[in-house]
Amino acid sequence: MAQENVPTVDLRNGGTKNGCSKAVSFSALKPQLVVQAPKAAEAVQFYKAAFGAEELKRSMHPKRKADQELPLILSAELKLGSSVLLVCDQTDECVAKVKGEEKGSGCILCLETDNVETAVANAVKAGGVIIDGGELTDGEGACCGGRVGKVKDPYGYVWLICSPGKMCTDVEG
Amino acid sequence: MAQENVPTVDLRNGGTKNGCSKAVSFSALKPQLVVQAPKAAEAVQFYKAAFGAEELKRSMHPKRKADQELPLILSAELKLGSSVLLVCDQTDECVAKVKGEEKGSGCILCLETDNVETAVANAVKAGGVIIDGGELTDGEGACCGGRVGKVKDPYGYVWLICSPGKMCTDVEG
Repeated sequence: MAQENVPTVDLRNGGTKNGCSKAVSFSALKPQLVVQAPKAAEAVQFYKAAFGAEELKRSMHPKRKADQELPLILSAELKLGSSVLLVCDQTDECVAKVKGEEKGSGCILCLETDNVETAVANAVKAGGVIIDGGELTDGEGACCGGRVGKVKDPYGYVWLICSPGKMCTDVEG
Repeated sequence: MAQENVPTVDLRNGGTKNGCSKAVSFSALKPQLVVQAPKAAEAVQFYKAAFGAEELKRSMHPKRKADQELPLILSAELKLGSSVLLVCDQTDECVAKVKGEEKGSGCILCLETDNVETAVANAVKAGGVIIDGGELTDGEGACCGGRVGKVKDPYGYVWLICSPGKMCTDVEG
């Protein structure tokens, strides 16, 4: 139970000692690159060619405005070394609401944790601002599945705090 | 010696099969958040309080324009879960040149590899553009030590391809 003086803190974050009310552990931090629609598919090809990225999963946007439109990528998950990079088309679901007033492409930081509520509460207590409606959503149709909270930090970066393992439905190929 | 048919490809990237001339393996992908100077120190505090991030290293900018100015952070390395996040003040060395025409804060993707030259060549072959002078630099005073190549991808993201292990001088505390 006692967690003090743990020799390695690799997967534990010192929440309490740093002023958080409750310690939360994060299983992954995945940068998500938002690409001007409909170029996410092209961007995925680029990251494969440029860096040898390996595509793990891809989930597509369920709706298109017109049949002739290209299907948009809600989230493509790429393995790059031991890290994961997410790529998505800029859509209302994926970005416009997440980025708030910001337009154009940008990088969102996806943080995975089993304790989304506490993680979001800690971030808000530290000075972050919940965006996109102010409520934790269940994220269907969004970039993340499971519980999702979106917090903008005081420096303009958007953090997407979500449950792990439910990222994207598998729509490989 | 023979690396073919490795059962897990976690740390190997399928460069060849994806069209790269030479496979390069990447040891880490670290998002670097560029913060409007001199707020990087404050941002580091925020990430500690909000997410329980643990500071591993910090390197400071060697020069200040005036004594009354706050020292700027060239690179602070934060552990968040099993991932590493970099935070830096926006300075000429760290950002202005990296970001080129872009102003304001932004996210740079630091990719670590033992084979910077080939990784940069692969990225350029795939359609990336070398920025910041067009030459690999040795990165002293920059965010990364060792060999550093900066490549802008066709979607506007800047990749800082550098040698691992030499990231930042230890100026802990």
